[in-house]
Amino acid sequence: MSDENNFSRRGFLGAGSALLGGLALTQLPLDAAGKPGTVVETAMPKKWDETFDVVVVGSGFAGLAAAYEAKKAGASVVVLEKMPTAGGNSIINGGIVAAAGSPLQAKMGIKDNPELMAQDMIKAGLGLNHPALVKLISEKSTETVLWTINELGVKYLDNELVQEGGHTVKRSYKTYNSSGSAIVLPQLEKLKALGVEPRLETYVAKIYRDKDGRVKGLQVREGYEFPKADSGKVKNIRARKGVVLAHGGFGQDVAFRMIQDPKLTAKFESTNQPGATAEMWRESARVGCNIIQADWIQVGPWASPDEKGFGLAPHFAQEAASMYGIWIDATTGKRFIDELANRKIRADAIMMLMNQGHQCVALADAKGVSRLTPGVMTKLQERGVVKAFQTLEAVADYYKMPKAAFLETVAKYNTNIKNSDPKDPKDDIKNSTKLPQGTAPIETAPYYVSRLLPKIHHCMGGIFTNTNAEAMDVSTDKPIPGLYAAGEATGGVHGAVRLGSCAVIDCLVMGRAAGSNAAKAKAWG
Amino acid sequence: MSDENNFSRRGFLGAGSALLGGLALTQLPLDAAGKPGTVVETAMPKKWDETFDVVVVGSGFAGLAAAYEAKKAGASVVVLEKMPTAGGNSIINGGIVAAAGSPLQAKMGIKDNPELMAQDMIKAGLGLNHPALVKLISEKSTETVLWTINELGVKYLDNELVQEGGHTVKRSYKTYNSSGSAIVLPQLEKLKALGVEPRLETYVAKIYRDKDGRVKGLQVREGYEFPKADSGKVKNIRARKGVVLAHGGFGQDVAFRMIQDPKLTAKFESTNQPGATAEMWRESARVGCNIIQADWIQVGPWASPDEKGFGLAPHFAQEAASMYGIWIDATTGKRFIDELANRKIRADAIMMLMNQGHQCVALADAKGVSRLTPGVMTKLQERGVVKAFQTLEAVADYYKMPKAAFLETVAKYNTNIKNSDPKDPKDDIKNSTKLPQGTAPIETAPYYVSRLLPKIHHCMGGIFTNTNAEAMDVSTDKPIPGLYAAGEATGGVHGAVRLGSCAVIDCLVMGRAAGSNAAKAKAWG
Repeated sequence: MSDENNFSRRGFLGAGSALLGGLALTQLPLDAAGKPGTVVETAMPKKWDETFDVVVVGSGFAGLAAAYEAKKAGASVVVLEKMPTAGGNSIINGGIVAAAGSPLQAKMGIKDNPELMAQDMIKAGLGLNHPALVKLISEKSTETVLWTINELGVKYLDNELVQEGGHTVKRSYKTYNSSGSAIVLPQLEKLKALGVEPRLETYVAKIYRDKDGRVKGLQVREGYEFPKADSGKVKNIRARKGVVLAHGGFGQDVAFRMIQDPKLTAKFESTNQPGATAEMWRESARVGCNIIQADWIQVGPWASPDEKGFGLAPHFAQEAASMYGIWIDATTGKRFIDELANRKIRADAIMMLMNQGHQCVALADAKGVSRLTPGVMTKLQERGVVKAFQTLEAVADYYKMPKAAFLETVAKYNTNIKNSDPKDPKDDIKNSTKLPQGTAPIETAPYYVSRLLPKIHHCMGGIFTNTNAEAMDVSTDKPIPGLYAAGEATGGVHGAVRLGSCAVIDCLVMGRAAGSNAAKAKAWG
Repeated sequence: MSDENNFSRRGFLGAGSALLGGLALTQLPLDAAGKPGTVVETAMPKKWDETFDVVVVGSGFAGLAAAYEAKKAGASVVVLEKMPTAGGNSIINGGIVAAAGSPLQAKMGIKDNPELMAQDMIKAGLGLNHPALVKLISEKSTETVLWTINELGVKYLDNELVQEGGHTVKRSYKTYNSSGSAIVLPQLEKLKALGVEPRLETYVAKIYRDKDGRVKGLQVREGYEFPKADSGKVKNIRARKGVVLAHGGFGQDVAFRMIQDPKLTAKFESTNQPGATAEMWRESARVGCNIIQADWIQVGPWASPDEKGFGLAPHFAQEAASMYGIWIDATTGKRFIDELANRKIRADAIMMLMNQGHQCVALADAKGVSRLTPGVMTKLQERGVVKAFQTLEAVADYYKMPKAAFLETVAKYNTNIKNSDPKDPKDDIKNSTKLPQGTAPIETAPYYVSRLLPKIHHCMGGIFTNTNAEAMDVSTDKPIPGLYAAGEATGGVHGAVRLGSCAVIDCLVMGRAAGSNAAKAKAWG
């Protein structure tokens, strides 16, 4: 316990709370005229160069879904994309989409429902998830996947569902090419057929929020050359009905991610496309959006510096070294973390060590890798991501480990495995202490090692919205008129940990809601 | 693993990253004239009713320290407090103050230094702490405690230092009365001698930030009756040099805390004074402060609904039931968490269950409570916080537990304790599986039970500042001219978990910095 040892506070909380009442809910501040809140004002431009009903920022799953629904509803629509290609992170995403209670589940005899999916999301999210958003997305998941099939023509594998980590059942559709491009490209085609093509290299420099509180348009830079902030020609675009923010996360923005979590230094790579930077996070905060949970940034602990993206290394580091081997701080020769702890705990531990100049590696022996999908180890060795050694001494030499300490670490682990029942007396709680069946001492050459490099993957936090995808005002907790948000730019859906395959469905459900609601909004001017 | 299973992203991140360069740092947005950022503007008042050099919001440790330094530096100062009494949460705080490398440590033969304190804070904070802030506070800790003694006349116990949880050594001074009032009252007295007395019932309705980006004053309501937003008389106070925000946390604000973390429903109490609400969190965000890590809210899992504040219950629930007993979900009769997991994990688990209508209790037997400080159990029973039962069946009956399930839970726990070596094979990592010495089966009547109610205690997040206590602009990462912040209102010092006794020193060090730097600032107008 801590300074909370002061267990006798009756003086104040007795008398004081009697005096002041047990008032937990306060009213929001009123301005001098007794009207709620004080609007953030950005001076309006002298003239608007162009006008659309709905202006969408970002061309990933969410932005394109918003644009499509808005256009179908009769609105004039423009999609702005700062990068020279459309699709953002979505087009390089894994293309796996959660749907609870789907026809494919029925066909495969899998029982599931939206409540179960919501429970899975909230459990992984440590209850930081906003229940109403999770409920909506779970309930709309099946109809939305069917919409991608029937309306967009997206092709999924016919007889396969994926069970991602944290999901209690197989529930995720898998695109035919295991890529989000199987969704993004049809989205782009359908939009093109309706006359909407993303304007590339178009950077949003400013959101115009007027005195009356309404967002009325954007200042953009056409011909923007990422990441040159002063490139491109300034233009003002009016949004008669609404602006939809679908600008994604900030995984590539070292300065901004280090404000949220100082561990995420430039030492660490990101799986994201280079344009995943934070300008719109700053700008949406500036105009009064409530940015929540932005410090929850998903980092994969098992990636390697020796290949791009997540690559294949996680198969080895997780499915072999973590389950049947150990992870070592090469600088000390010692273990540093429960290898079966969750990915945040493990990534945090590696990042703390790396920021002190240490290197961490994953180790498994021939038995440990025997369960991997055939061919994976060959590829990993060909790519130089995993290296093989005939002795533990050779491992120590290659990675410049203190040899005695390293050998003692392995010996101690082996003794524990041989002599102990690896079961905690409280094992009904601490699942990670249940070692996987087949765990054995590390003593069968060759010994395989990969270097560990945490890679930044997904921003769980972002703009707080309601279930209409309306962006909420930090001053009033009411929607900001004319401003909508969806996808990775938003917060509150995934909480502490986003489950695999839940980002895509979030983007599609909330993107459609944003576009549809923006198109229905009352126009101004 | 999750959708990150798509391990082959070379298409984009190979070709794409070659094209776009490995640019991780982007420039901040420039406005049309090529100037950085776009200032958040609040229309200036027609006239200022009063003018001070430095205007301090809040009258806890931080605000009073800021006011004192500003006044000593020759500035004219006013302190604004919305509640009818001064001192905020500080005056009901435990009065324990961390200082690394102090004279009292030297006297007691304890080796310590600021680096060690910083390491302790960052370890507990999961590396979310901003290192420069932690370094500053650790390095200034001893001189600041000595300043409270020599300059303010604060009285601490002469021959005792406290070792709070998470600190590697005994390093915390303890006020003579185990209360923060031993610091706040001298602060108030010294300020009064300098002619500064907090203006009570004075609510800040608006921060004035002008077109040039500078914060120039505040709109207040004098004669404010908490929590009536429209009470009091509106007045505009000009700050010629600076405004210091030291408004504290939002533990009592159910609406705001549920936006940050939806688990923190009205079911849960707070140890905070009733005025710990979020109006200034909203307002500082509105004018362009960068609010970070606001979802990290410290909650004590071991408190009881049957007494106010943290009370005495934690002694029983933690030191007896958690270490030598078990915690039970009374609705199912089962254990629900590792009783020795950290307080966040345990509080989260209880809150999730309680939000589903469950009740949780802590159980220990006669052996389990035998190590408690004499007298504590008597008081707890007198107050009705802990109840005693002669049989486990009676426990089940009283708390309406499913009897068979509950008895099986206890029996299973007892069997595990009797038969197993409660040691994980990976015990060099998982300390929580090392059961405390003396752990024994629960079988000696009487059986003692307390109800568990998580109570909200401290906000780790808040306004992002630099080491000068200047509030940083979310658009530009530069200080907002004229705006300073300190104490619980700020974020980035404590990260995920604030260690006991580190809040007070944070408030004092950064409060003094804020006041001193505000007094040194160039005046406007």
